[in-house]
Amino acid sequence: AAPLTIIAGPCQLESADHAQMIAGKMKEACDSVGAQYIFKASYDKANRTSVSGVRGPGMEDGLKMLQSVKDAIGVPVLTDVHWPEQCSIVAGVADVLQIPALLCRQTDLVLAAAETGAAINIKKGQFLAPWDMANIVAKVESTGNTRILLTERGTSFGYNTLVTDMRSLPQMGQTGYPVVMDATHSVQQPAGLGGSTGGQREFAPLMARAAVAIGVAAVFIETHEDPDKSPSDGPNMIYLDQMPALLETLMQLDKVAKAYPLEV
Amino acid sequence: AAPLTIIAGPCQLESADHAQMIAGKMKEACDSVGAQYIFKASYDKANRTSVSGVRGPGMEDGLKMLQSVKDAIGVPVLTDVHWPEQCSIVAGVADVLQIPALLCRQTDLVLAAAETGAAINIKKGQFLAPWDMANIVAKVESTGNTRILLTERGTSFGYNTLVTDMRSLPQMGQTGYPVVMDATHSVQQPAGLGGSTGGQREFAPLMARAAVAIGVAAVFIETHEDPDKSPSDGPNMIYLDQMPALLETLMQLDKVAKAYPLEV
Amino acid sequence: AAPLTIIAGPCQLESADHAQMIAGKMKEACDSVGAQYIFKASYDKANRTSVSGVRGPGMEDGLKMLQSVKDAIGVPVLTDVHWPEQCSIVAGVADVLQIPALLCRQTDLVLAAAETGAAINIKKGQFLAPWDMANIVAKVESTGNTRILLTERGTSFGYNTLVTDMRSLPQMGQTGYPVVMDATHSVQQPAGLGGSTGGQREFAPLMARAAVAIGVAAVFIETHEDPDKSPSDGPNMIYLDQMPALLETLMQLDKVAKAYPLEV
Amino acid sequence: AAPLTIIAGPCQLESADHAQMIAGKMKEACDSVGAQYIFKASYDKANRTSVSGVRGPGMEDGLKMLQSVKDAIGVPVLTDVHWPEQCSIVAGVADVLQIPALLCRQTDLVLAAAETGAAINIKKGQFLAPWDMANIVAKVESTGNTRILLTERGTSFGYNTLVTDMRSLPQMGQTGYPVVMDATHSVQQPAGLGGSTGGQREFAPLMARAAVAIGVAAVFIETHEDPDKSPSDGPNMIYLDQMPALLETLMQLDKVAKAYPLEV
Repeated sequence: AAPLTIIAGPCQLESADHAQMIAGKMKEACDSVGAQYIFKASYDKANRTSVSGVRGPGMEDGLKMLQSVKDAIGVPVLTDVHWPEQCSIVAGVADVLQIPALLCRQTDLVLAAAETGAAINIKKGQFLAPWDMANIVAKVESTGNTRILLTERGTSFGYNTLVTDMRSLPQMGQTGYPVVMDATHSVQQPAGLGGSTGGQREFAPLMARAAVAIGVAAVFIETHEDPDKSPSDGPNMIYLDQMPALLETLMQLDKVAKAYPLEV
Repeated sequence: AAPLTIIAGPCQLESADHAQMIAGKMKEACDSVGAQYIFKASYDKANRTSVSGVRGPGMEDGLKMLQSVKDAIGVPVLTDVHWPEQCSIVAGVADVLQIPALLCRQTDLVLAAAETGAAINIKKGQFLAPWDMANIVAKVESTGNTRILLTERGTSFGYNTLVTDMRSLPQMGQTGYPVVMDATHSVQQPAGLGGSTGGQREFAPLMARAAVAIGVAAVFIETHEDPDKSPSDGPNMIYLDQMPALLETLMQLDKVAKAYPLEV
Repeated sequence: AAPLTIIAGPCQLESADHAQMIAGKMKEACDSVGAQYIFKASYDKANRTSVSGVRGPGMEDGLKMLQSVKDAIGVPVLTDVHWPEQCSIVAGVADVLQIPALLCRQTDLVLAAAETGAAINIKKGQFLAPWDMANIVAKVESTGNTRILLTERGTSFGYNTLVTDMRSLPQMGQTGYPVVMDATHSVQQPAGLGGSTGGQREFAPLMARAAVAIGVAAVFIETHEDPDKSPSDGPNMIYLDQMPALLETLMQLDKVAKAYPLEV
Repeated sequence: AAPLTIIAGPCQLESADHAQMIAGKMKEACDSVGAQYIFKASYDKANRTSVSGVRGPGMEDGLKMLQSVKDAIGVPVLTDVHWPEQCSIVAGVADVLQIPALLCRQTDLVLAAAETGAAINIKKGQFLAPWDMANIVAKVESTGNTRILLTERGTSFGYNTLVTDMRSLPQMGQTGYPVVMDATHSVQQPAGLGGSTGGQREFAPLMARAAVAIGVAAVFIETHEDPDKSPSDGPNMIYLDQMPALLETLMQLDKVAKAYPLEV
């Protein structure tokens, strides 16, 4: 199996300069440990807990920032889509279109994204079982698109808490498509702060380590040079300057995991 | 407190005649026990488990069917919306716009629905705690619209199962808005049949009875003359000819519940 | 079906006088609304969260207090057992032996209790599905004892939280034995206070109302004249002086529920 | 940190010869990869799902078998205790007394085990949060015994299903005591076969790998030369002849995990 891919970036796009800075540092860190790298950031947080949460630069400006990352840093980019009509526009820039977890059952969105021919990263809804993803995969495949990634990001567990069932990784893998562990959102505490979502940044490396030891294709992890100043998901993003050490550990585990593949 | 309201109808709109038939029988049954009645049906099931699930007549034809129910039977109608741009069109016919549970966190949809000035029924997402609904209520209120209903329809409980926490009814009621018990979808077994969603029709009356004894404002219940032939949600809809007996029981319980209001 | 039975008393036995006082008031309240009454209290809380939690008077003194309630007030009494060798001794006084929820899978305890010939109230473990209770019923029946009650007291739901699935009441009823709703422990927040268990007293009446509307045989409810001074379970016990009003409501609901039995 | 310890053996003691055979093969496998080894088996399965489940040889014969393993193979042994009075007897042979998960809240049992001075392995109840274990640790410490191990074995997740929250490993580790991952029982499907407990043997290695990558002190894993013929827990035990390959993988992951310790 190929070495680990890292999908990383800030939760929200803040500016072209900021996006390039993070993409540049992450590319350097990934290159130095032999990981493939995909830049990730959102142009619109369409489902903020509170109506007053900052939503991002919007699609038009956001796509310009993503294009600037591709041009300046030379890495593929991933971003999420929210309405069917956004898909073809976003696919003009983004290499991977991401279906947000809460929208993974919206047939029109999934089909519109799939029809662009771009790679599609489907995040598993917090309300779904791993095997339910086969139905969504079939929706994408119905368009002829088989460039599919499936992402674990935690499952509802009581109130305001998620739990990650590590069995879901090979279970989703039984579709035949690569599986991604989202180490950031799986440690969210949804609406855990009342008007906003809390998180447990300290557990994101744990989620990544466990998933890599099982043999996932990729880890998704949000990062920021100063998470507490980030406009969203601050409580669960990892400090940018801690990423090189984390990547070093993950690549060591990845080598073992792929030398001794788990059979399920 | 006012006597119980019944929100009922088939899951999907099938034809104008079918909609009027059900609305007519339900109006008669509600009148005979002193319940207020709102007709409910969907013109598009936008989040079917499988890409091959029947989705309904679509917005244009569906709205004609709903209008025919209003004209012929003289009852208010409720239907769900899926994209922001649908809201103002649907509000031209529907008295209550319903935000589907899986979409309850989509800010643009909630705001677009609220801005129509129609009454808004927000279904609580399977991934939310009851107290999280206050954030969504605030989104609606930010538009000046305070015609709000909040609906319990079950919470994720392990895989392919929902559980209804009866405490959520007064907890949502603490927002000051009327609370609805969805006795049909709370007994779904999401994707429990692999490629489609199962259900436990036999437990829908149980959910309704328990909620009414607590003192809810309304019960939402899907019904069909032949549920197993319905294009969706068949396994959890109640037979139309069993509705009068159920309503009789619910109204008896409602009388007690409202004579002895629960204090929380 | 017979009218509702009320199983009520303080969580822990404090003294013979205290037990008789509560039993006397409860008997009077039950008589005045036509409910049957069983006194409940524990002589040992064997599974306190903290090692320093008060455990009660112990078996020997506790049984004397229970006997005094029987003699002075003339009501049957229920208490819980913890080890096999306690069962025959306790059955010398108690009319109903209760298997604590956390111990419901301990075969030796269940068999020893059953072999006394006393009525056995089995509380469903927080870690069990309703249908799992059939296996425990079979253990009791293997001794020839068929005087069985099955009690719902909530199911683990995430961390430090219980949820009550109302469907469990008829599901347990399919064993053919009477079903009891424990309205007190189902609103516990296990270890929710760190070193002790929290609770939501305000929701106990809600649980009782919902269960009675479904048609349970009995409601179990702990009560105290000053719950916050009780040595255990204070946060979820109901004030003794609020019991008559609650019983009045429950009996009104019970009349409706049993006139219109739920068919599952 | 010390290299990984393996706690392994058959679920139930079957005979002295069988116990020695498994202990011998496991010792050899552990020696060859540099892991410490502790033999585990039960003399009584006191909480079988069904009254007709085979329970084991009983305490007296079981302790003889355990002693024979110590004598013949020269490894420490671990077994579980069920009643307070068993503890001092069992501690005459066993090096580690294990408190079963369902009994972890029984104060008398925990204290009696602790008072023997033996090492105590407390399995976290399926109904507990990781941080709740601090209360049980305090019970053991109240006797002066600080030879404590804490074991994760899955948490209730809906009905008939467990989920393992990997965050629990460092959370329990915050007590300062070594943490064990039970890779066998965490993949149980409690009562999932109706009258007996199912399991997912194929996921046990996954649980072990994930936990080792996080840096646990030990892995607990049941093994049998022919699991489907084992009197209990067959569906989740690993084939004995697959253990050497699994241990090789785990030790490779352990080396990385302990070279790069997770900071929480």
